[in-house]
Amino acid sequence: MKIRVYYDDTDAGGIVYHANYLKFCERARSELFFQRGMSPTQNNAHFVVKHIEADFIRSAKLGDMLEVKHKILDLKNASLTLIQSVWLDDIKLFEMTSILAYVKEGRPIRIDPKSKEFFLSIF
Amino acid sequence: MKIRVYYDDTDAGGIVYHANYLKFCERARSELFFQRGMSPTQNNAHFVVKHIEADFIRSAKLGDMLEVKHKILDLKNASLTLIQSVWLDDIKLFEMTSILAYVKEGRPIRIDPKSKEFFLSIF
Amino acid sequence: MKIRVYYDDTDAGGIVYHANYLKFCERARSELFFQRGMSPTQNNAHFVVKHIEADFIRSAKLGDMLEVKHKILDLKNASLTLIQSVWLDDIKLFEMTSILAYVKEGRPIRIDPKSKEFFLSIF
Amino acid sequence: MKIRVYYDDTDAGGIVYHANYLKFCERARSELFFQRGMSPTQNNAHFVVKHIEADFIRSAKLGDMLEVKHKILDLKNASLTLIQSVWLDDIKLFEMTSILAYVKEGRPIRIDPKSKEFFLSIF
Repeated sequence: MKIRVYYDDTDAGGIVYHANYLKFCERARSELFFQRGMSPTQNNAHFVVKHIEADFIRSAKLGDMLEVKHKILDLKNASLTLIQSVWLDDIKLFEMTSILAYVKEGRPIRIDPKSKEFFLSIF
Repeated sequence: MKIRVYYDDTDAGGIVYHANYLKFCERARSELFFQRGMSPTQNNAHFVVKHIEADFIRSAKLGDMLEVKHKILDLKNASLTLIQSVWLDDIKLFEMTSILAYVKEGRPIRIDPKSKEFFLSIF
Repeated sequence: MKIRVYYDDTDAGGIVYHANYLKFCERARSELFFQRGMSPTQNNAHFVVKHIEADFIRSAKLGDMLEVKHKILDLKNASLTLIQSVWLDDIKLFEMTSILAYVKEGRPIRIDPKSKEFFLSIF
Repeated sequence: MKIRVYYDDTDAGGIVYHANYLKFCERARSELFFQRGMSPTQNNAHFVVKHIEADFIRSAKLGDMLEVKHKILDLKNASLTLIQSVWLDDIKLFEMTSILAYVKEGRPIRIDPKSKEFFLSIF
């Protein structure tokens, strides 16, 4: 997924505000659903971020066209471990490993086999 | 209401991103409710912005402590006209006149007399 | 220009946070430069928003694919008057008239004839 | 540091958008400087986030008054390791360990003894 850096993504340091890389990664995850005409929330169940570990390697600036890539590390019964990275051409700017819990009305639930198959097909 | 300018409020131009003055004004409106331990939404009814007219006079920068002031211009049966301004000490940076409609489940409704009295007391 | 509505564009009301329509319009203006491999800032000169008048007509929600359209109303010696609107399919959600001043180092300057021609060609 | 949750901090899920906890932590770090009438940038040098590890434990919602706490884990010659947490009353919502590098014009530099002493006094 391609993401353009606009003014509101940057800060007075002249570069992308650090928390916005998490935003870019979330947009990329959601876009996998939207592109299929679906919502990230199915039957009131959806993934929420529980844990992240992230490296801020280089900075993006206004007008840059970034690319967000991802790879599934693990899909368990009630969670998904994902590694996502943000690139400017062939330079890696950011990398994040996230553990996403599958929740319904705020409580963790088991991912049913059909959804599991679906998540494996889109991620 | 006092609002500090943080990094995420600024952009690569080194100053507060223009749309954030609207955000500051909305925070100030909501804070009038929060300070009284209330939500801006009462019985599913709340104000939504329908029309604004705004002047961007001067710029705020990182670390500035701003003040948002307001004055009711008009409180009708289903709408509120408010003038809000953002100040840095005695310098006016921004001024906005907003027409806010009172809505419930997306539809405009009449403001009941009790709420009307309440809005007049807090704004 | 097409803009997808992501989680960070929405608020607890379940719809796009009102100030974000200004953000979408700014992104669309900047994109006109980025698409040509240019920055909205040329020789330290760029447009800043001085005055807006906006109507919030309907709401966008998560996942919506919006379109931002624009039309020049006036290009003067030191300012640009633009009308921009945000659409969901054939439904107009938002319309804004902005007066943008051309500034260099914080001061209004005259738009040179070459830039004037360029702005007329891209807007 | 106390931080109120406003509409723009929340998303369509009805709770604070996950990346905003990083924003709250950054605001709290910057506020330590602002409160002393200083900028987080001294002689063009400042801290940038290089690595984070974060746990999203519970969610905050509109109107909540949060508190950000912090503790220095380590202050090295060119970096600061900080643990920050976000609380709602006595409930921990978020915890993050960050490694912040001290940089000048984009390059890591040694923290001079005077600054080191200052950082130890404010964090």
